[in-house]
Order: sequence, then C-alpha cells, then structure tokens
Amino acid sequence: MKVEVRERELSVAGFRFGATTCGIKESGAPDCGVIVADGPATAAAVFTRNRFAAAPVVIGRERLRRGQLQALVVNSGNANACTGAAGLAAARTVCQTAADALAIPAELVAPASTGIIGVELPVEKLAPGVRRAIADASEDGLWRFARAIMTTDAFPKVASETVSLGRSRVTIAAVGKGAGMMAPDMATLLVFIVSDAVVSAPHARGLLRAACAESFNALSVDGDTSTNDSVFLLASGRAGNRPPAAGSSALRALTKAATSVAQEIARLVVADGEGASKVVKIEVRGARNDLEARRVAATVARSLLVKAAFHGEDPNWGRIACAMGYCGVAVRPERVTIRIGGVEVFREGRGLAGAQAAARAAMQPSEFDVGIKLGSGRGRATFLTSDLSHEYVELNSAYST
Amino acid sequence: MKVEVRERELSVAGFRFGATTCGIKESGAPDCGVIVADGPATAAAVFTRNRFAAAPVVIGRERLRRGQLQALVVNSGNANACTGAAGLAAARTVCQTAADALAIPAELVAPASTGIIGVELPVEKLAPGVRRAIADASEDGLWRFARAIMTTDAFPKVASETVSLGRSRVTIAAVGKGAGMMAPDMATLLVFIVSDAVVSAPHARGLLRAACAESFNALSVDGDTSTNDSVFLLASGRAGNRPPAAGSSALRALTKAATSVAQEIARLVVADGEGASKVVKIEVRGARNDLEARRVAATVARSLLVKAAFHGEDPNWGRIACAMGYCGVAVRPERVTIRIGGVEVFREGRGLAGAQAAARAAMQPSEFDVGIKLGSGRGRATFLTSDLSHEYVELNSAYST
Repeated sequence: MKVEVRERELSVAGFRFGATTCGIKESGAPDCGVIVADGPATAAAVFTRNRFAAAPVVIGRERLRRGQLQALVVNSGNANACTGAAGLAAARTVCQTAADALAIPAELVAPASTGIIGVELPVEKLAPGVRRAIADASEDGLWRFARAIMTTDAFPKVASETVSLGRSRVTIAAVGKGAGMMAPDMATLLVFIVSDAVVSAPHARGLLRAACAESFNALSVDGDTSTNDSVFLLASGRAGNRPPAAGSSALRALTKAATSVAQEIARLVVADGEGASKVVKIEVRGARNDLEARRVAATVARSLLVKAAFHGEDPNWGRIACAMGYCGVAVRPERVTIRIGGVEVFREGRGLAGAQAAARAAMQPSEFDVGIKLGSGRGRATFLTSDLSHEYVELNSAYST
Repeated sequence: MKVEVRERELSVAGFRFGATTCGIKESGAPDCGVIVADGPATAAAVFTRNRFAAAPVVIGRERLRRGQLQALVVNSGNANACTGAAGLAAARTVCQTAADALAIPAELVAPASTGIIGVELPVEKLAPGVRRAIADASEDGLWRFARAIMTTDAFPKVASETVSLGRSRVTIAAVGKGAGMMAPDMATLLVFIVSDAVVSAPHARGLLRAACAESFNALSVDGDTSTNDSVFLLASGRAGNRPPAAGSSALRALTKAATSVAQEIARLVVADGEGASKVVKIEVRGARNDLEARRVAATVARSLLVKAAFHGEDPNWGRIACAMGYCGVAVRPERVTIRIGGVEVFREGRGLAGAQAAARAAMQPSEFDVGIKLGSGRGRATFLTSDLSHEYVELNSAYST
C-alpha cells in the first residue's frame, strides 16, 4: 500500500553509513551498503531459525558470540543461501575486504545478504563495492543505506526514537527491509538497529529479544522465517549515559525505545507486504494465557480466507470464527466477541446481522483493528497482518529463481 | 482446473438418492439431496474438529454413536453454523421431516449442511424440499445427488470401485463436494461413501479412518477443517459377503477400495480448488519417521510462495528448501534431494543450475509430482496441493458473508 516516506535528517553518534551500486542487481539499483562504527561497538543479533540458514547467517552467528562488531556489510540482489562451502568462503572474503579497508580484524565485521537463493555471490563485484561504500560512508548516509538494502521493497524503512537516560539523551534508530508479509519465506527481513547508548552486551541481547518479540515475531511472518532473516543491534556508547543496570528504569526505557522503533519497522514491512492494501492489527484478549492468545491471533492473521476478506472489505466474521475454531485452542464459542474496526459483529456464538454495514464502513481505511475477546482468562496477544491481493499472486508467480 | 467428468451409470444395492431445488440458493440451482437406505445401514463418520462445529455436526456426532443410519439429509447454500440453539432445532426438524416421510425413527437420520455461515437455516424451504427429494429418490440418482450438494464446486465429484470378497462382488462409491484447497476454512468438505458390503460398525469406523488419513487428511486442507466438514460411510450389507474379520485380507481389500475412492474424491477436490490450475503431489521419503515426513510434506504443500511458483511453472527449489527449513523438522540440507516432475533440481545442499529448463518443462502438465528425499531414515508421507492463482483471490475477496 502507499506509504508516504519523509526522509528526515537522522544520524546516530559513532556510526557512518555507506551505499553504492556494485552490479549484483541487473536493474542497476544500489545493492551494497555498509554500517561502520568509529570503534568496536556492543553488538547483539537475532537470526533466522531456518535449517537452511544462509552463509552470512552462519558467519554472523560465529561473530556475534563476543558481543562486539565494528562493521556490517550488506548486499541486496543475492541471498548467498544454499550455496554450500563456496558461499561461506565468499561471505568471509567480503568481510575480509571490509576489514582490510578499515584496518580492523575481520572478526569485527558481520555480513548480511538478501535476494535470490542458490546463486553464487559474485565476490568480484561485491568486494570493490564494499570498498567504495566504505569510502563513501558518512554520518548522514542512513537513508542511502536504507535504499541500498531494498529488494522488492517499495520504499525505504527507517524509524528513530530519542530517550533520556539520566542526564544523557540517547538516540536509537532502525533501518529495515522486507516486503511480502503473506508467507514471506523468500522475503528476507533484515533490520539494523543502531544507538549511541552505553549498554552491556548481555543487556543488548536481552532488549533486542524483547523488542523482536513484540514486533517482528508478531507479524503473520512469524514461524515462516527465511533463510536470511537477521536483526542486528549495535551500540556505540557515544551518548555517555551511565550503563543501565539490570531491572533499572533506564534499561526499561531503552528497551521500550528499541521496541518502538522495531514496531514501526514491522508496521512499514507489513504495509509494504507484496501487493498489500491493508494493515490489520489482530488483538486477542481474554485467553487462558498469553501463549493461547498468540495462537489464536497468529491463526487468524495467517488465514488466507480472512486476508482475502480484508482485501474485499468484507466483515466476514465467519472466517475469523472458523480460523479460531481450528487453531487448536479450546475456544468457547458462546463466550467469544469479535469486533471489526471497533464494530461488534459476533457475540455469544452468533453473528450480529445488523452490524454488517457499520463494520464494512470501518474496513475502508488502510489500517484497522480486529478485536477478539475469548472470555476465558487474562491472556493477550497482538499480531499484525495484511490483506491478500491479486498483486501478491502476480508478484510471486512471476518472480523467478 | 478443467476436469472432464464422465457420468457413468452407477448404483449401489440398498441405496436410493434424491435431489431437488428448495430455494435456499438464490441461483435456483439444486440445493437439497437425500441418501436413503432400504433399511438401517451400518454407519461411521469422521467430523471436523473445529471448535465452532456446525449444528448438523453436533447432531451427527450424537446419531453416529449407535453405528446405524438409514437416511442422510443434505443441503447446500447454508452451513447452519454459528446459528446457536435455533440452528440445532432447525437441523432436528429437518431430520424429523425425513423420518416422518420414511416412517423411521429420527435417530436413524443424520443431517449435513454446506454454504454460508451464520445465517439461520430456512426450515420452511428445506422441509418441503426434503419430502420432495425423498419422493424423488431412486437407485440411479447418485449423480443428481452429487450436483445438489455442490457450492463453489465447478463439477460433481463421484468415484467408485468394485472388489471381490470371497464369492461376493462388493461395490463402494463415494460422492463428495469441496473446492478451495488453499486454506479451505470456509470450503466445507462433505463426502458420502456408500457400499453394499456387509461390515461391522467398528470395522466401518476403522476403515473410514484409514481411508481419510491417506486422502482428505493428506491435502493442503489438513488442519484447516471447516465448521461443517463431514465424511460418512454407510454400508447396506446387500452384497451378502461374509462379515470380514479383524486383520483379514477381506477387510484389507475393503479398506483399500475405500481409500481408493476417497483419494479420487480428494484429487477431484484439489483439482477443483478455487482457481487452481495445477494438482501437485508432494512425496517425502527418507525422514526419521512418518510424522516428520508428514510435517515436511504439509509445510511445503501449504507454502504460499511454493504454490505461487507452481502457478508460474517456475522450478523454484529455493522456496521448497526454505519451507522445509522452517517446518520444525531437523532437516540436514547436505543430505536433501529435490525433484520436480522427476527432474533433480537440488542435491546435497545446492541447486543444480543446469536442470532448470528441464524442470520447467516438467511443470507444464496440469498434474506433476515433487519428490523430496531427506536421507535421514525411512519415514514417508504424501500430500496433495494446488497452485495459488489470481482466481483464488478473486473468488475469496468477492464472496460475501
């Protein structure tokens, strides 16, 4: 769907961003980006759990163990997945190229790739590109970086927050790419969160996990992780705040800010879902526990028939009830309430015929909520999803290996 | 996809089939059918596990406990689901109407409904229809019955087998309706299997369960059961065979025949999937066990991106590998082989670039196989699926509550 992007100036102390065109994409669009920290930064990451993890993910996992990184090298147009030993060697070479150009150990460089699966990474194109991107890197390069990592994305995705920690003002910014919310096993999600905060590596890991749980793991994406999905967090420490202690309000504030930028990127990714014209928030309340609430929300969010009804702006509560009915949670129909765009359409096991017109009207906007109350407890969960459109089929049956 | 239907004459001793138009469907198409046995028949059924089970399913479950039925009353156009106590009363009234017309106890009559959810069943239209359909019932009415139970189906679905049990020749026939393989939470599957075999109620239940496991529970349908899904088996005993004993070759032969007709109905249902142009069999071999094989097959069969690639006749093994990678089974990529239409496209963790043209050619027919070998054991499973087409989105975003 159409999203207006305002490219506000944005920089995060301690980081430079570079981008270039190295020729991996046949289109000639930018396809290589780097994030470079002034020195070793605290680093954490969350990677795909796909068994066919791509070469950059394998290397990223190794290099994140120490909790420090100084540079990320990212390419679009080629996922370097299902490429065997040659793919691992190619990714290492690219990292080494960046390390040499920056005169730092290769262990401080992690790779990320997105694009076609099963085609060898053209190192001869990417390595010179990485050198150029590093030479090009500047504090105001974040938006250019955002565009260089796009694949089927219709627009660059950036979010930022500032938060006061004691007397320090901390910035946290996120850059992401990803589009194809329907079942995005190919639509890699790459997210880079950078902050000038001082934060320890264990706390960085904890807050990144918390932020992902309420954003990227609460989309209709969830579970269908691609071979390359990666979310990185790098913190330069340049804000000079006191290191937040475990359980402190400062750590909570930082986690909240990270969650907020992650949620904004998640929203932009769903809005940019291949062919999507609606972003719908599924809010489940009153489950026996949060896990069951999540299962109900995820099943409704993933139902093709529900998504097709969203596309047709049809308040088809029957499809929502049906998806709830097969999700494996012991739902009690006679206690269930369903609202679409705030309009109650189902109560106590039956649809409310008189509410259809109002519900249909509430589905006209490009974003609306579906509220489900189960009446069985206090468990709750929220999921973002999109509609199923003709354009989705068009894009995904035409796209070729 | 286009399926040529040849209406061969078909009757099963001991059964009559009736059909009529009672006015539930606005289109004026037939919407009421009955199956009437000459006397109480051995009966078994498998029902949806959806928590929002429709009224006819609730009543069917009660009436199947005794293992005997003499009549089934079926309507299309209205699912009688999410209709509360009024829906249960309506279904009972319709069964009573049939029982009165046949002068048998209502306990020997079970209902089945398919169509729109959440609208009260118009008993004033259906009850006279049931009386007319009973008056109309004849031994050669099976195809008319098959058409009367259609909803979005493009063609009637019938299959039959004969099998020798000792000196007796036994016929087993199946009539089904269902279309919308993609995520058919609304596309109810109703199947009626009738046989002249002599078989006990416990064996009837066992063989029906076995037949369903290898047919209707091995489609991309599986798990996404609608509120109304029902598969009935009625056996009149008119063939006069000796009752098959547990573990006998006769029982195996009967089970095999029931499985065969169920698989043919399943194939027809997938072929009639809303907007489908391909039927694809996913065959998984070499899993650690059958359950893991099934999980791999089901995940690949349900992946939207895989289905979209089938539609585009694109041998996109990357999407297949990716779906295998996130299905939760500990797949070892380096041991995996993938064939599309018999052409090996992936081996030992890598795609075979040279095979693309041949694989693309192998995807041109309307039916082809995808063979996946995991190299980890002897577990196996087969799943049927269809492609994801524009027509699917069209049909399901336009269809209204």
